[in-house]
Amino acid sequence: MNRFGTRFSVTTFGESHGQAIGCVVDGVPAGLEIDESYIQNELDKRKPGTTKFATQRKESDKVQILSGVFNGVSTGAPIALAIFNENQKSNDYENIKSLFRPAHADFTYFKKYGIRDYRGGGRSSARETAARVAAGAIAKKLLEKFGIKVKSGIFAIGGVEALDVDFEYAPISEIFALDKTKEEAQKEAVLRAKEAGDSVGGCVFVKISNAPFGLGEPLYDKLDAALGGALMGINGVKAVEIGEGVNASKLRGSQNNDQMDEKGFLSNHAGGILGGISTGMDIDLKIHFKPTPSIFIEQQTQNEQNESVKFSLKGRHDPCIAIRGSVVANAMASLVIADMLLLNAACTLENLKKIYSKQ
Amino acid sequence: MNRFGTRFSVTTFGESHGQAIGCVVDGVPAGLEIDESYIQNELDKRKPGTTKFATQRKESDKVQILSGVFNGVSTGAPIALAIFNENQKSNDYENIKSLFRPAHADFTYFKKYGIRDYRGGGRSSARETAARVAAGAIAKKLLEKFGIKVKSGIFAIGGVEALDVDFEYAPISEIFALDKTKEEAQKEAVLRAKEAGDSVGGCVFVKISNAPFGLGEPLYDKLDAALGGALMGINGVKAVEIGEGVNASKLRGSQNNDQMDEKGFLSNHAGGILGGISTGMDIDLKIHFKPTPSIFIEQQTQNEQNESVKFSLKGRHDPCIAIRGSVVANAMASLVIADMLLLNAACTLENLKKIYSKQ
Amino acid sequence: MNRFGTRFSVTTFGESHGQAIGCVVDGVPAGLEIDESYIQNELDKRKPGTTKFATQRKESDKVQILSGVFNGVSTGAPIALAIFNENQKSNDYENIKSLFRPAHADFTYFKKYGIRDYRGGGRSSARETAARVAAGAIAKKLLEKFGIKVKSGIFAIGGVEALDVDFEYAPISEIFALDKTKEEAQKEAVLRAKEAGDSVGGCVFVKISNAPFGLGEPLYDKLDAALGGALMGINGVKAVEIGEGVNASKLRGSQNNDQMDEKGFLSNHAGGILGGISTGMDIDLKIHFKPTPSIFIEQQTQNEQNESVKFSLKGRHDPCIAIRGSVVANAMASLVIADMLLLNAACTLENLKKIYSKQ
Amino acid sequence: MNRFGTRFSVTTFGESHGQAIGCVVDGVPAGLEIDESYIQNELDKRKPGTTKFATQRKESDKVQILSGVFNGVSTGAPIALAIFNENQKSNDYENIKSLFRPAHADFTYFKKYGIRDYRGGGRSSARETAARVAAGAIAKKLLEKFGIKVKSGIFAIGGVEALDVDFEYAPISEIFALDKTKEEAQKEAVLRAKEAGDSVGGCVFVKISNAPFGLGEPLYDKLDAALGGALMGINGVKAVEIGEGVNASKLRGSQNNDQMDEKGFLSNHAGGILGGISTGMDIDLKIHFKPTPSIFIEQQTQNEQNESVKFSLKGRHDPCIAIRGSVVANAMASLVIADMLLLNAACTLENLKKIYSKQ
Repeated sequence: MNRFGTRFSVTTFGESHGQAIGCVVDGVPAGLEIDESYIQNELDKRKPGTTKFATQRKESDKVQILSGVFNGVSTGAPIALAIFNENQKSNDYENIKSLFRPAHADFTYFKKYGIRDYRGGGRSSARETAARVAAGAIAKKLLEKFGIKVKSGIFAIGGVEALDVDFEYAPISEIFALDKTKEEAQKEAVLRAKEAGDSVGGCVFVKISNAPFGLGEPLYDKLDAALGGALMGINGVKAVEIGEGVNASKLRGSQNNDQMDEKGFLSNHAGGILGGISTGMDIDLKIHFKPTPSIFIEQQTQNEQNESVKFSLKGRHDPCIAIRGSVVANAMASLVIADMLLLNAACTLENLKKIYSKQ
Repeated sequence: MNRFGTRFSVTTFGESHGQAIGCVVDGVPAGLEIDESYIQNELDKRKPGTTKFATQRKESDKVQILSGVFNGVSTGAPIALAIFNENQKSNDYENIKSLFRPAHADFTYFKKYGIRDYRGGGRSSARETAARVAAGAIAKKLLEKFGIKVKSGIFAIGGVEALDVDFEYAPISEIFALDKTKEEAQKEAVLRAKEAGDSVGGCVFVKISNAPFGLGEPLYDKLDAALGGALMGINGVKAVEIGEGVNASKLRGSQNNDQMDEKGFLSNHAGGILGGISTGMDIDLKIHFKPTPSIFIEQQTQNEQNESVKFSLKGRHDPCIAIRGSVVANAMASLVIADMLLLNAACTLENLKKIYSKQ
Repeated sequence: MNRFGTRFSVTTFGESHGQAIGCVVDGVPAGLEIDESYIQNELDKRKPGTTKFATQRKESDKVQILSGVFNGVSTGAPIALAIFNENQKSNDYENIKSLFRPAHADFTYFKKYGIRDYRGGGRSSARETAARVAAGAIAKKLLEKFGIKVKSGIFAIGGVEALDVDFEYAPISEIFALDKTKEEAQKEAVLRAKEAGDSVGGCVFVKISNAPFGLGEPLYDKLDAALGGALMGINGVKAVEIGEGVNASKLRGSQNNDQMDEKGFLSNHAGGILGGISTGMDIDLKIHFKPTPSIFIEQQTQNEQNESVKFSLKGRHDPCIAIRGSVVANAMASLVIADMLLLNAACTLENLKKIYSKQ
Repeated sequence: MNRFGTRFSVTTFGESHGQAIGCVVDGVPAGLEIDESYIQNELDKRKPGTTKFATQRKESDKVQILSGVFNGVSTGAPIALAIFNENQKSNDYENIKSLFRPAHADFTYFKKYGIRDYRGGGRSSARETAARVAAGAIAKKLLEKFGIKVKSGIFAIGGVEALDVDFEYAPISEIFALDKTKEEAQKEAVLRAKEAGDSVGGCVFVKISNAPFGLGEPLYDKLDAALGGALMGINGVKAVEIGEGVNASKLRGSQNNDQMDEKGFLSNHAGGILGGISTGMDIDLKIHFKPTPSIFIEQQTQNEQNESVKFSLKGRHDPCIAIRGSVVANAMASLVIADMLLLNAACTLENLKKIYSKQ
C-alpha cells in the first residue's frame, strides 16, 4: 500500500514530523550511474523557503543513499534513500491536535485508523512527496539513457491560463510558469490569495517527449490508467487530463481522430497514447490541484469529540500547492514511464531473444 | 497485467472476434448469493442493438458461471464467467486488416507486439468491457449487503451538459440521461453526428452513496488514485474528475474547503475523499469519453507497410461511446469500492479482534 | 490468491465437479507458436484411467483455447484455457457430504469459508492441477525456444528409491520411473497398497537443464524460494529439496561447497542455485508427496455437527498421487522458470539497451 | 523483488558493508504497541560475537524506528527500521574481490548484474537477515495479541538429531538446542568442524502453536506454499519439510492420515495444514541449512577473468549458520502467519459484517 510501481517500484515511509522520510527504490537496473548530488538537485526544486510563492518553512532536505549503489553505480539491489527531519516544531500543532482541519486528511485518518499523528498531518503531509521526488530522480536518470525527457510547469493558477507553453522557460521562473506572458498575472493570483490569508488552486502541465512506442501494459496497466492513477494520487489533485482531456468529450470523431500519413501522426489529440500504449508522440498531461487547504481565515470544523469548533491556522503554508506540485507530478510521471520501460522489455519473443541469445 | 484489483480482483480475457470473452473474479467473500440472472441483468444494460443511439450489432451476451458458486452462494473460490461469441463477421475487417484506423489501438498494438488481431480491434475492442460489467455485477452485489449504491448516467454529450442530475431518471432514459430537460438536446447531438457519419464525445457522472468512511489505502492505493486509474483505463476515457475536479484549480481555499459542524460536513467539494480515504459523503466522479474513433467519413492513415492510404469504415458502430460507457464506469467504480472494502478490513487491531475473538 | 507468478502468470479456476476448470495465462510474450494439440499432449500425460497405477476414472480432459492466440501465434493478450467437465457423478459424494475425510481439505475449507463444495473436494481437488499442466505446457513451449528442458519422473515410491536416474526412460514407464531397475519394486509398492485398500507416498525428481545463469530475483523472489513455494503448493506435497537437500544439513562445508576451475563448477551440490540465482548448472529438485488421503479402509472422523463418525470411501482413486504429481511438478517448475526468464530480462541497463536501441 | 508478503509486507534494503541495512514494514494494523527495545531483544538473539559457536564479529546492531509509530503505537503508516553499520572492515575483502568464493553468491550476482559489491557478499550477505528479524519482531508482537506462538530451535547439527524437542530449553541453550541430551554432541560437531577450519550443516525446527484455523489462501497462497517459499528463501536453506515431511513419501495413507473424533484430530502427521489451510493443530516445520560456505581450508575457484585460482578465506565466520538461522526462520514464519492473519480477515461475508456493521 505504500508501494508504487510494479517492476521499477518505490516504497515510501515517514511522517512530516517523524525522524525521517525516505523510500526504497527497487528494480533499478544494474549499471546506472547514481550519485547523491543528482538526486539532491531534483529535491532542491521542490524545496520550500526559497521564494515568497512557497512556504517559508526551512527544510534542508539532505538526501542520503543508504544502499544499492556501489562505486557510483547501481548494483541491482534496492536503493534506500533517507532524508532526516530537522527542527520539527511539533508545538505548532498543539492547538489543532484534537480537531479536524477542513480539506485535510485529519478526519479520515482518524476514522480509518483510530489514531493519528497530528503533527503537520503526519503521514498525509505533502512532505512525503520529497520521497517521491527523490525516487523520481533515479527514474529520470534511467530515462535519460534512452533520450526520454519528462518536463513540467505551471499551466494555470486560479484560472489564469497559459496561452502558449515553453518548457524551457519553466525552470527559470520562480513559479515554474510555462507562459512568460501570463507569469505576472499568475503570480498576482497567488499573492492576492496569500494577502487575504487564503490560497488558490492551479494546473500543472507535464510533457513526456521521445518515449518509445510500446509503453503500457493493456488492459489493466495501460499507460493512461497508470499515469492517471499515479497523478490522481498526489496530494491535492482533483482531476487529470490526457491529450484533449475534458475537451475530447465535446468534440466529434472527425475533429478528435489523429489521422496519419506515411511519416506518422498528423496531430496529437490523443496525447501520445492509444489503447493504453504509447504512440511515440508527446505524452501530454494536465493535473489540476485544489487550493492549499491550510488557510488563515477562521473556519468551522469538528473535533474528535464531535463538537463544532471554530479555529484559525497558524504557521507557514504554501499559498498554492500546484507550484511545488509541478515537481512532484514530474517525478510521478517519470516513475510510471520507468516502470513501463521495464515491463515492456519482455513483451515479445523477439525481445527475449535479443537478451538471451548471447549467453 | 490483465488483472485489476488487489483483494477483490478480476482477470479478464478475450478478443472481439475470438471464441469467448470472460473473467475470473477472485477474492469474493464466501457466503454471497450470486446467480446468473443478476449478472445478466447488468450485462443487458450495456448490450448493443437496442436503440438507435447505440450500434445495431446484435450480441446476445449470455453469461455463464463456470466456477466458484455452489448452491447459489459464493464459496470463496474464484468465480469464472464466460460469454461465448456468436456470429463474428470477421469478413467485415478484411479491408482494414493491414491499415491502422485513426484513434484506434491498431497502430500501438502492432508496434508493441509485432502482431495484432485485426478483427474488430481484437483485445483492444470495447467488447472486452462486457467482462468488466459482469465482474462489476458481483462487486455491486457485495456492496448492496452494506447499503452502498453506485449510480451513473450521462452528464453531457457534445458539450450539452446537465443542469441538474437525477440518478433515478437515468435507468429509464434511452441514453441514460441524468437531466430529463437536457435529454432531447443530448439525443440530438448524437443523431446529428450519426447522420453526418461522424461521432461525438460525452461525459459520465458516477455517484457512490453510503460508502463507509475509511476506504482507501494510503499512500499508493488511495481511493482517488485507484478510482482515477480504473476509470482512466476504460476505452476512450481522456479525463477523470473527482468532486470539484478541474474547477478546484480555479478556486480559493476558502471556497473549496469543506467546513464541518457537529453533524458532519457542510459541503462536499472534496467529492467524498480526503487524503485518499472516504469521508462518508457521496463520492462524485466525472469521466470524459472521447468521440467514437470509428466514423464513416473518409480518413487518411498509414498501413503496415508505412504507406499513406485513404479509407472509409464500414459496419455498425456506436455514435457515442459515453452512453454504454456509463455502464462500464459504474462497474469499474464498483470493483474499486469492493476491493477497498476488503483491504480496509484488516487495517486496525480493533477490526482483527472482531474477527478472531470468537475462535 | 488464485494467481501464480509475477510476469508470466496463471490464474486458475474451477472445481472437481463444476462446469469447467481452466486458467488465464497472462504475460506470454507475443510471437510464440501455440496450438491446442501441444497443450493436449501435456495434459494427456496426467490423464487418469490409462493404467492400473492411476485412478480408473475417465476424464477426457479436452482443452480449448478461448483467447490470446491468433493464426497459431500468441498475441501478447491473455490466453484463456478451458476444460469442460463431463459425467460428474456427484451422487458418489452424497454419503460424505457432511463429514470431513481425513487428510483432505474438507475440514479446513469448511472452517475457513463456512461453506464447501463437497463434490469431489470441489476446489481442493487434484483435478485443478489439470489447469496447472495446461498452463505449464505454454511455459514449456517458451522455454524450448531457449533450449531449456524441464524433465521429471518418479524417484521413489514407498521408500523404494532409484539408484540411478534416467530421464529418457521416465516417459515410457507406466509410472514415470527414473530407474528401470527399481521400477518393478516401485510398481509392486503401489499395487500392494492398492490391494490393501490403502495408498502410498512417493518422491518426484525434477531436473531443469540448460537454464541460463541469472534467473532468480533476490531477495524475496529468489529462484529457490519461488520453486520451493510453487512445489510445496502442489496438492499432497510435504517436503521440497534442492540440490543436496536434507543431506546438506549433515555435511561439512568442504564436502558441500562446489569448487570451480577455469571451465566452471566441479560439482553441483548446490543444485544449480546460489544466492537464489541460477548458476547455469542443472537445477535439481526432489518433491515428496504424501500417500493419497483417499483410502478404502474404514476410518474415523468428525462430521459438520462435531460428531465422531466411522465411514469407508467409495469410488476410484489414485493409489499413489506422486505418479501423476510428477507431471504437475514439471509444469509448476516450468512456470517458475518462464516467469524468471521474463523478470530477469530487465535487470541490467545493458539488457534494456539491447531492446530499446533499435527504435 | 525485495518485498515479502502481501498485506503484512516487508521491503528490505542494505548490504553487508554499506551504510545501513533495514526495512519498511507495511500493513501493520493500527493500534499495536511497538517499541524499539522489543525489536532489539529479538535482534539480539541473532547477534554474533556472543559465543564460540558463532562468528566473533562484533555488530552492535542497534535498531532505530524511523516512522509509523506515534506515542508507542502503530498508526497504520509504514514502519521503517534502520540498523546503521559500524566498523565495516572492507579491507578484509581485498584479496577476494575478483574471485568467486565457492558456494557463495559471488558468481551468480556477477553474472546476473554485471557488477557486484564484493565486500562481505554485499546484498547476498546473511547480514541482511537482521532486517528480517527486526520485521519479524513486529509480526510476533501482532501474533501475541491472538495468542499465537512461534517457537524455534536446533533439531540437528551435522546429522546429530534431537530425540525429543523442548522449546522451553532452546532459548537458554547457547546453540538453541531443542534436546538437552543431544546438545553436547551437537556442540562438539560444531567445534570439531571449526577446529578443522571447516563448517557444518544443521536442521532447525519451527513450531507455530495456537494458530487459528482458516489461515492460508488457496490455491497459490496456500499456507504451506507461503511457508515453503519463505523458508527456502533464507540464505543457505536447501530443504523444507512440513509435518511428516520427507517421511510422508514413505508411508501408507492409513499411517499418514490424521483421523478425528468429536474433539478433533487424533494425530498431526499433516503438520497443522490441510489443503493449504491451517487446521488449528501445531504447524511443524523443519528447515535444513547447508554448512557455512565460508571455510578456511584452501579451495579452488574461478576469478572474474575466468581463470582457475586457489585461495584461503580469512576473517571470522559462523561455523554453523543453522544456529543463528533458527532465529531467522522463526522471524520468517512469523511474517507469513501475520500476513495470512490479515489476508484471511476478509474471506467471508460474515467477517465483513462484523467489521462494517457498527458504522
